[in-house]
Amino acid sequence: MSIASQVPGVLRLMDIEAINKLIFDYAFHLDMNHPQDLVNLFVDDCEVIYGPNFGAVGRVAYAKTLEGIGSYFVGTSHHVSNIVHDFKDNDEAHTRAVLYAWHRYTRERPDSHVYGQYHDVVVRVNGVWKFKRRELRITGHKDFHVKECVPIGRA
Amino acid sequence: MSIASQVPGVLRLMDIEAINKLIFDYAFHLDMNHPQDLVNLFVDDCEVIYGPNFGAVGRVAYAKTLEGIGSYFVGTSHHVSNIVHDFKDNDEAHTRAVLYAWHRYTRERPDSHVYGQYHDVVVRVNGVWKFKRRELRITGHKDFHVKECVPIGRA
Amino acid sequence: MSIASQVPGVLRLMDIEAINKLIFDYAFHLDMNHPQDLVNLFVDDCEVIYGPNFGAVGRVAYAKTLEGIGSYFVGTSHHVSNIVHDFKDNDEAHTRAVLYAWHRYTRERPDSHVYGQYHDVVVRVNGVWKFKRRELRITGHKDFHVKECVPIGRA
Repeated sequence: MSIASQVPGVLRLMDIEAINKLIFDYAFHLDMNHPQDLVNLFVDDCEVIYGPNFGAVGRVAYAKTLEGIGSYFVGTSHHVSNIVHDFKDNDEAHTRAVLYAWHRYTRERPDSHVYGQYHDVVVRVNGVWKFKRRELRITGHKDFHVKECVPIGRA
Repeated sequence: MSIASQVPGVLRLMDIEAINKLIFDYAFHLDMNHPQDLVNLFVDDCEVIYGPNFGAVGRVAYAKTLEGIGSYFVGTSHHVSNIVHDFKDNDEAHTRAVLYAWHRYTRERPDSHVYGQYHDVVVRVNGVWKFKRRELRITGHKDFHVKECVPIGRA
Repeated sequence: MSIASQVPGVLRLMDIEAINKLIFDYAFHLDMNHPQDLVNLFVDDCEVIYGPNFGAVGRVAYAKTLEGIGSYFVGTSHHVSNIVHDFKDNDEAHTRAVLYAWHRYTRERPDSHVYGQYHDVVVRVNGVWKFKRRELRITGHKDFHVKECVPIGRA
C-alpha cells in the first residue's frame, strides 16, 4: 500500500481517539458532578434520550435535566467499553458502546447496577467532536431509579 | 522516523481497530440474540471453548451450541476491555481481553456475574478479521450456569 | 493535510496503544498473581498510591506491598476502561482511567466490588513505557478491604 493512501487511515484513527475521549469525558464529568462540563460536550441542537419520556432537546433543556444530580447521588461510576464507530462522512459518526453503571443514592435505597448501550451520533464542529444525539438503551438493571427505559431490542 | 517507515504502523493500528470491532460485535450479537451474526464472525474450521467439556469445533457445531440462547436468557450484557494484541504475522493475531458478563435467566434463578478472560486467535480471511479460536477462561463468578470452567491459571 | 504532517500522529497513536498495553498488563499480572511482572512495569523511582496511608515509593518498597497478594485473594478481576491520555511531551503522558475491580478473599468475608479511577504518570524509558506514578482513587465500593481511600473529589 502506498504512503499517500495511508493518510485517510491516520486521520480516521485520530478521529476515533478523539471520539472515544468525548465518550469518556462524558462519563468522567458525570461521575465528578460537573454538569457544565457535561453540557459543553453537546452541540446546541442536541437530543438526549435517557428513556421514552425522559430526555431533552437542545443544550438548555439538557442542562435542566442535569440539575440535582449533585444531591441525588452520593456517587456514580460509568464504565464504557465495546465502542464501535461507523463514520457517515469525515465529520459525523454513529457510535455504539456498552455501559455498566453503578449508582449510590443520597436517600435510603439500594445501590443500582445498570447494563446498557449508548447509541450516539457525534459530529465535528469547529474541529471538536461533540454529541449531536445520545440515546441510552437498557439491557437490564437492578434497582435503577429510572423506571421507563428504552430497551435494546433483543431479538 | 521517515514517513515510509510509518506505513506498517498505520496498517497495524487499522488492524487493531478491526480486531477490536470483531470482539465487540461478538458481544453485541450475543446480547442482541443474533445467533447467525455470531456464527458469521468465525471461520469454518473454528474452535470455541467455553469450558473443559463445553464448546464446539467448526461453525456448524458452534451454531448448534447457540441454539436456545434466545429462550434461556431474558438478557445478557458482555463488557469487554483490557484488549492486548500479539501479532503473529500480518494476518494472524493472538488477543487477550477481560470480560465482565451479566446474565438474567428465564427460569427462576438469580442473575449471574462472570469475571473472565477471552484468549482468542483471530485471522484475516479475504480481508476480514474472524475468530479462528476463542477460549473463555474464568477468574471467578457468582451463580453462573456453566459449572465446569477453564481457569485462568492464577499462580 | 500533507503526508509528512501525519507522522507525529502515527507515532502518537502507536504510543497510545503501548500505554494502554501497560495499563492492561498491570491488571493481567495482578489478576494472575505475578508480582515480579507487576514490579517490572514501574520505573525504579516510582510512586504508588493505593490510599492516603497505603502505597510505596520506589520499586523495592512497591515489591514489598505486593507480598501476600497470592494468599490474601482467591481471585481478583480488574476491568479498566475509559482511558484518556494527556501527553506532556514525547516521552511522558498523564492518563486517567476507570476501574471496576472484583475481589474474592481467602478468609471468610464477602466478595468486594470497587469502583474507582486510576490517575497515572507514564514515561518512556529506553523505548519502553512504564509507570512513574500510579494513584488509585475510589468512587465507591462494597466490602472493600482497604478502609482508607483517596476520594475522586466529586464536586
